[in-house]
Amino acid sequence: MREKMVKKKETQKVDIDPWGKALVQDYLRLIKNFGMQKFDIDEMPNPSMQMKRGIIFGGQDLKQIAEAIRKKKKFYCLTGIMPSAEKIHLGTAAVVDNVRYFQEQGAKTYVLIADVESQATRGVPIEEGKRRALKFHIPAYIALGLDPKKTKFYFQSENKTVSNLASVCSQKITENEFRAIYGSVHPAKVMSAFTQMGDILQPQLKEAMPGVIPIGIDQAPHIRMVRDIARRLKSTYGFFLPSASYNKYTSALDGSFKMSKNESVGKLEIPENDRSKMEKNLKKALTGGKVTADEQRKKGGQPEKCVAYEYCKNHFIREDKPLATMYQDCLSGKNLCGECKQKYLITYANKFYDDFDKKFAKAKKTIGKIKFLK
Amino acid sequence: MREKMVKKKETQKVDIDPWGKALVQDYLRLIKNFGMQKFDIDEMPNPSMQMKRGIIFGGQDLKQIAEAIRKKKKFYCLTGIMPSAEKIHLGTAAVVDNVRYFQEQGAKTYVLIADVESQATRGVPIEEGKRRALKFHIPAYIALGLDPKKTKFYFQSENKTVSNLASVCSQKITENEFRAIYGSVHPAKVMSAFTQMGDILQPQLKEAMPGVIPIGIDQAPHIRMVRDIARRLKSTYGFFLPSASYNKYTSALDGSFKMSKNESVGKLEIPENDRSKMEKNLKKALTGGKVTADEQRKKGGQPEKCVAYEYCKNHFIREDKPLATMYQDCLSGKNLCGECKQKYLITYANKFYDDFDKKFAKAKKTIGKIKFLK
Repeated sequence: MREKMVKKKETQKVDIDPWGKALVQDYLRLIKNFGMQKFDIDEMPNPSMQMKRGIIFGGQDLKQIAEAIRKKKKFYCLTGIMPSAEKIHLGTAAVVDNVRYFQEQGAKTYVLIADVESQATRGVPIEEGKRRALKFHIPAYIALGLDPKKTKFYFQSENKTVSNLASVCSQKITENEFRAIYGSVHPAKVMSAFTQMGDILQPQLKEAMPGVIPIGIDQAPHIRMVRDIARRLKSTYGFFLPSASYNKYTSALDGSFKMSKNESVGKLEIPENDRSKMEKNLKKALTGGKVTADEQRKKGGQPEKCVAYEYCKNHFIREDKPLATMYQDCLSGKNLCGECKQKYLITYANKFYDDFDKKFAKAKKTIGKIKFLK
Repeated sequence: MREKMVKKKETQKVDIDPWGKALVQDYLRLIKNFGMQKFDIDEMPNPSMQMKRGIIFGGQDLKQIAEAIRKKKKFYCLTGIMPSAEKIHLGTAAVVDNVRYFQEQGAKTYVLIADVESQATRGVPIEEGKRRALKFHIPAYIALGLDPKKTKFYFQSENKTVSNLASVCSQKITENEFRAIYGSVHPAKVMSAFTQMGDILQPQLKEAMPGVIPIGIDQAPHIRMVRDIARRLKSTYGFFLPSASYNKYTSALDGSFKMSKNESVGKLEIPENDRSKMEKNLKKALTGGKVTADEQRKKGGQPEKCVAYEYCKNHFIREDKPLATMYQDCLSGKNLCGECKQKYLITYANKFYDDFDKKFAKAKKTIGKIKFLK
């Protein structure tokens, strides 16, 4: 019992852990505890579907990005690809959708391929990581909406600017500060974290400008640290402190909350090659239905508790109208869960994957034209 | 008082500290405490002047290097240049002389220019570090005996293999192991240490082979760690555990013992452009003379306590005969300290610097022909 308590305390101590799997459910508490700001839909020009639906729930210093968009000033957006398995979690796809939004608002867009980290942490040889990125991840990101002509892709293994800058960044944080942010000072964490600092700041070496990093909440520690570092390097490099936007997590199909994107149990991935298996899984998704069909017909279901609805809202149904109908027909008791899943979840999931597959096939053909940043 | 005791205890705890200035006087104790081996002159083929004179006092696994030399098998030797100030301490020059020895015995020779570290730790911009290395350090190393045709020079800032390998290495050491070896886990130390691990091991990526790192004793922690890492990466990369040879420190002219090569007070450097100032300094060097001239004439001096003799032995007099005469004429009381300094220390120091200046001027002309490893 005592051991359990100690363990619980430790888990609470470091709520956000980019490498771990601690549970995070109370977004408002997170916003307060971690000094983020609640996402302000009124501030951001041309808000995206995700913004309107509260999937982007928080941010860090997004005012400067909104201003850059409004005043058509320079800013950048950066995201990364981990080229380990040849698949992408839906949560990652949602982050890419947010990158697409900022790109469409004028952001200079950087996508790094973390082949060095993939080798170090997952034993994927650099060359194999590159091969996978070229074969799958880069065309997938393009299929998800990035414009290859406007996106600067680069491999960590080929970008010396990043590792040089990482070294400079490491001078600016003490051991205790690092521990407070990341929970430990394992050498591999240190190397990986500062490489990310280098990635995030390097677009500002040529021209200092605001930048936004769309991420899942598990990546928040990197933002905390990069902002501290940027502040301390301001006098030398003129850095702007990077901004961030935070995506909500997608629940597993059984309703459990899996924090890590690496945790695939019960989650959907892209691509989804076995559609009949997918449909079977989707049929098992937790819903907000009542105990009996009769009761549900009378009192209606609870869409806010329904994973099928969550998946449709967060991922599969981009158009507002069918989503509103799905919601209403649940509330009113018109649709029982089985019908609803077939009509919405399964239908729109298939549409989503059909659309992805088509765009992916097209993107693969253009991959040879991409010029990588060195 | 209590504070002092605590401080002393801390200093003792980490005897060898590549970044600090703790004093190390008892080489035998070091050999024992740090699991090195006493340098075995009988084992090493064609021993150098430094080896014969005990300036190379210890080693790590030098048997495999001696065997590679004898059997004409592949092996490598690696050293680094910190391109901060445009000068080299005599202690560094002694290490370079040791690299020259291994090169002449057939070692594939690597010299890295630590421009990334120089930027991170001393604020020298990468481009400035490169400029200094090309203008001063590389020709100086050639003047000290390295064959530019047989030496692979590279800039850390341009060598991605090193930073990629550094990342892999960082996976193989825990936080506590790192702390036990280096005394702390400051992020900058971590980044710097693993970059050095990458440097030391990268020649083995193309072909696994034994390698020797000639160093001052302050660098011993890197050897400890790289051997642990090489052992743990053996099954993946087939690495040989790197060997090391250890150079003694050169005392400051006043006889005090300065551990760090960065500590220039009272030490000589290369180049020495103000010869009259140098001669003035050399005249003040601590000697092993008696209190009165009469006593010295009768009983003789103590060359083993004489810094002038140490400098001649370790650096300025390569020929054995004049050194032996210097020693004898001190012991016998024939030369008083002032005469001896003029006849040996000052004369041979000037010869040493004349020789360096001549070779340096020549080396500068060939610098354009060097092809750098990427």
